[in-house]
Amino acid sequence: MADSFGVQLQERIKEFGPLCVGVDPSSALLSAWDRPDNADGLEFFALAVLEAVSGVVSVIKPQVAFFERFGSAGFRVLERLIADAHDAQIMVIADAKRGDVTVTNEGYAQAWLREDSPLCVDAVTASPYLGVRALEPLFEAARENGRGVFVLAATSNDDGRVIQQATTADGERVEDVVMETVARLNHRDGGLGSLGIVLGATRSAPRFDLTTLAGPYLVPGVGAQGAGAVDVARLFERCEEGTVLASVSRDILRTGPERRSLRDAAQRWRDDLRSAL
Amino acid sequence: MADSFGVQLQERIKEFGPLCVGVDPSSALLSAWDRPDNADGLEFFALAVLEAVSGVVSVIKPQVAFFERFGSAGFRVLERLIADAHDAQIMVIADAKRGDVTVTNEGYAQAWLREDSPLCVDAVTASPYLGVRALEPLFEAARENGRGVFVLAATSNDDGRVIQQATTADGERVEDVVMETVARLNHRDGGLGSLGIVLGATRSAPRFDLTTLAGPYLVPGVGAQGAGAVDVARLFERCEEGTVLASVSRDILRTGPERRSLRDAAQRWRDDLRSAL
Repeated sequence: MADSFGVQLQERIKEFGPLCVGVDPSSALLSAWDRPDNADGLEFFALAVLEAVSGVVSVIKPQVAFFERFGSAGFRVLERLIADAHDAQIMVIADAKRGDVTVTNEGYAQAWLREDSPLCVDAVTASPYLGVRALEPLFEAARENGRGVFVLAATSNDDGRVIQQATTADGERVEDVVMETVARLNHRDGGLGSLGIVLGATRSAPRFDLTTLAGPYLVPGVGAQGAGAVDVARLFERCEEGTVLASVSRDILRTGPERRSLRDAAQRWRDDLRSAL
Repeated sequence: MADSFGVQLQERIKEFGPLCVGVDPSSALLSAWDRPDNADGLEFFALAVLEAVSGVVSVIKPQVAFFERFGSAGFRVLERLIADAHDAQIMVIADAKRGDVTVTNEGYAQAWLREDSPLCVDAVTASPYLGVRALEPLFEAARENGRGVFVLAATSNDDGRVIQQATTADGERVEDVVMETVARLNHRDGGLGSLGIVLGATRSAPRFDLTTLAGPYLVPGVGAQGAGAVDVARLFERCEEGTVLASVSRDILRTGPERRSLRDAAQRWRDDLRSAL
């Protein structure tokens, strides 16, 4: 059986550092890059970012919403990006934030985590509003295929707090319950597991003991959203090496389309994060 | 300016009854229909359902997860279904349950609610885990284009209750806060608004007064998931006519692929719901 996603990601982070570069081809960024806001512009943008960061980082995180804008044509570009990234030995985390009832999550598992799908990636982000337990088809597909799922716990935006910090019937915060549930599933599997957590760098330490997840953290909110490498280091200070992956998007992407600028910005963030973490 | 989505939907419901037929081409249903589990099977399934229910109901609800399973090829089928449904004067609610931070939700708004997108539908479902307020780009696109957004409040599955019934800092349940926030936005716009709520028929009455939403309800959990027409009628008993749309999927779809069986099953559910509501 393949190593779990957590183990594979840890090896990558130890070698290439704890930076994941977001691929966010929004209308605003395509315009800033002087590219058309269509599938051609999208493809140029996505492949330029991939080319620029190859050899510098080992993980990219396409934001699916910005590909979905162009329907099937946008998904064709995403499929090409995924294939090219795999050829370049770069891991792909699809930032899709999918989540539904169990029977429907089987569909999302087939889309993102089954080898025969053109969208099959190393990991996908998932939303727990319909219950962490309802995500089981995604978890199962991840375990079976050496792939991963990052479940949203505490996101980087302020709007998220109303729900994420609400108190459940057990007297715990929603964000803590999400992390505890994921930790329990990872511990059942043993070792460093397939299931990760999304925890924004702009948030204060949760009650959940972050060292007990037995899985990786995906950390947005770094760069343009306000947090720096030092904030990430402080939040995850006692976590095992190679279990924290910070994601930077706009702060790197806005330096494009010049490849060298993109590469330099990625390198700076990677080095900052590596020395802080 | 076009009528709001709530007004348009109300007219449809008054004419054709309060039934929306789910289009869920899962592996299990394609197999039951003796069709291949690929994009061809998907297309056959989706167009057969559309053809069978045309003239019987006025709204269909494709479950995006089951199209996404085949990547861009699946989205091409979804685009065809949307175009054909519009030609047949049938409304389409994309059950996508999208939701992210504000800047990313602009991408989802462009995908599902902007006229120049091949995925543009009459309404889309959205998930509030990152905050109802973060969904504003979707709300704005809906208002501007006479389209709608159904925000998940209380879903039909048991797993959802941990989070949806947690207590916020204001001492209210998450599901009630979601409904109150959406109601406030609808009242600000005036009349029957663009913003709806997803509330499972399997759930008991919330504390929120359902008659005050000033928008439509999309009601899953009917049929195979356990609730009947009478449960829907009881839950929404004092709501204005034409504001409640019950969604039935498996209980109709499993009668396929024979068109007459699908049509008969849809007709039975429509008539049951119409006389109960």
